[in-house]
Amino acid sequence: MVYGVILAGGRGERFWPKSKKKYPKQLLPIVSNQPMILETVERVSSLIPRNRIVIVAGKEHGVAIKKIVPGATLLLEPFGRNTACAIAYAAVFEINPEDIMLVLPADHYIPDKDLFLKTLKKAIKVAKEGRLVTFGVVPTRAETGYGYIEFGDEITKDVYEVKSFKEKPNQMQAQRFIREGRFLWNSGVFVWSSEKILSEIEKSMPEFYKELLNFKAERISLLKLYRKAPNISIDYAVMEKARDVAVIKSCFAWDDVGSWLALERVYKADSRGNIKIGLHKGLRTKDCIMVSDKGVIATLGTSNLIIIRHKDAVFVCDKGSAGDIKKLVHQLSQDKNFKKYL
Amino acid sequence: MVYGVILAGGRGERFWPKSKKKYPKQLLPIVSNQPMILETVERVSSLIPRNRIVIVAGKEHGVAIKKIVPGATLLLEPFGRNTACAIAYAAVFEINPEDIMLVLPADHYIPDKDLFLKTLKKAIKVAKEGRLVTFGVVPTRAETGYGYIEFGDEITKDVYEVKSFKEKPNQMQAQRFIREGRFLWNSGVFVWSSEKILSEIEKSMPEFYKELLNFKAERISLLKLYRKAPNISIDYAVMEKARDVAVIKSCFAWDDVGSWLALERVYKADSRGNIKIGLHKGLRTKDCIMVSDKGVIATLGTSNLIIIRHKDAVFVCDKGSAGDIKKLVHQLSQDKNFKKYL
Repeated sequence: MVYGVILAGGRGERFWPKSKKKYPKQLLPIVSNQPMILETVERVSSLIPRNRIVIVAGKEHGVAIKKIVPGATLLLEPFGRNTACAIAYAAVFEINPEDIMLVLPADHYIPDKDLFLKTLKKAIKVAKEGRLVTFGVVPTRAETGYGYIEFGDEITKDVYEVKSFKEKPNQMQAQRFIREGRFLWNSGVFVWSSEKILSEIEKSMPEFYKELLNFKAERISLLKLYRKAPNISIDYAVMEKARDVAVIKSCFAWDDVGSWLALERVYKADSRGNIKIGLHKGLRTKDCIMVSDKGVIATLGTSNLIIIRHKDAVFVCDKGSAGDIKKLVHQLSQDKNFKKYL
Repeated sequence: MVYGVILAGGRGERFWPKSKKKYPKQLLPIVSNQPMILETVERVSSLIPRNRIVIVAGKEHGVAIKKIVPGATLLLEPFGRNTACAIAYAAVFEINPEDIMLVLPADHYIPDKDLFLKTLKKAIKVAKEGRLVTFGVVPTRAETGYGYIEFGDEITKDVYEVKSFKEKPNQMQAQRFIREGRFLWNSGVFVWSSEKILSEIEKSMPEFYKELLNFKAERISLLKLYRKAPNISIDYAVMEKARDVAVIKSCFAWDDVGSWLALERVYKADSRGNIKIGLHKGLRTKDCIMVSDKGVIATLGTSNLIIIRHKDAVFVCDKGSAGDIKKLVHQLSQDKNFKKYL
């Protein structure tokens, strides 16, 4: 049986002011008219029914997720502890050893469902042979915001040995990765059996694995497990060290929707390069992203801006600075006048 | 006796989205916490009591003005017809021939009340000698947004003959005006006796003067008078042709508050050149004007922008384009989706 483990632990900073602590990106419609987490669940629904969907999320989002994805199993984390811990929790607590887990971030954009499912089916086959399968997306640009996977020999059609995992590169490295053609984007989508990932966790994180067993045997609480868990991603904790790792070359369009700039890759801009969600009118306005929940945005002589109006907050950002929104949100969080807008 | 004739006919385009057709700039607090028209009336209150204040305004603004300036006489125009007609209407209908009229736009910024009143007293003296007195403000920069007055020989201290009126100059001309030192800003503030201005209107606009007499004798309606009135400013219609014109050199700070950019001359910017009205937080934000009626504005990596949030409208403008706001508002007025925001 195949389970879908949806990682929904995001904090809602990058899509401020639309996303908030209480309503992070994954719970909101960002790239369509339904919440991203629901898009994610429905993408795999033909293969994985709702009762085999396991959502790992922060406890403060439990009520909202229950409403958005009724019928799914909810594993609520006492606090965020990165992906290694979330995946281990789901594997040890909810999924039988022989079952296959598809691990899927709740808030990625993958418009071509059919191609995704086709790739997924192949990955499941490979996972059943005892491999840790990661989805490597064929890069379409020298993106510096993603991690990369260097692939080696072909195992079977479109499935390769992994030579190395690469952290987010600088511009020159990214261009080299594209040129050399031996690198894929690390999508954070994985397929493996529960027993295989747990045995690799045992090898790479023996201390944490002991606590996992204690938790499973009800000798320690979930809170204690999380307190003892290292704050580390599954990539660093396990994948880079594990054997039997395979990457499946994936040709579907994929985006991690990491900032407002992602809208440029999701929506078609008009002839002046503007993307508009909500009522907008502009004069001499080009290459802007404008999003409003109500009312109007009007612009005059602007270019290369992101302008978001959501409820009582207006956010205006030069596109080149979009990556620093977390810093801004952090500053807002330090000022009591602004806290209610976060 | 001295009457204050307040010209309040503006259309509310330049301070959109704060100003609207129904609430143009003069009815709003733009440069302080009270409506500009009230500031204007109170500026002269020690010299001109409320019952000698005559406000000429569009009929659609009558109710609002009555609330803001109770006790003043209201002359409501059927439609806007520029300053020559408005001034003639007030002179012929409301003010005795021998009385002095101070003509004052409702929406100018003149913070130094004492210096203004001192200048006004001198102007009244000169007007009583049968002159048309115009206030010429000593320019502090090569502004291309104002008309200029070239002055000639001194009549009495700080009062000069007028050599010519100059329309808004280009940058080179404006710089020459400043360099030569013989030019003053045409403030649109005038002092004269009712009979003097009417006799000059008779000379310059004989057809219109006949209609004025017909209107005074109740042979034609106000609507008919306005329909027959030429759409022309008092400067072009009368001042440029009249004799006995004097300009009083005025040293008070003055601004016609012609666009959002005027806030830079009214409010002190912070150390990064930003002017903030309402809650704002920014990272790498400089030389911006940010105004919001509620909620917050947050900015990231922006410079030289005007960002206004008022009710359900957000307006973002590059400072260099601020002069084109009328064009934008015109475009909005052509689209039924946007009409309710004007």
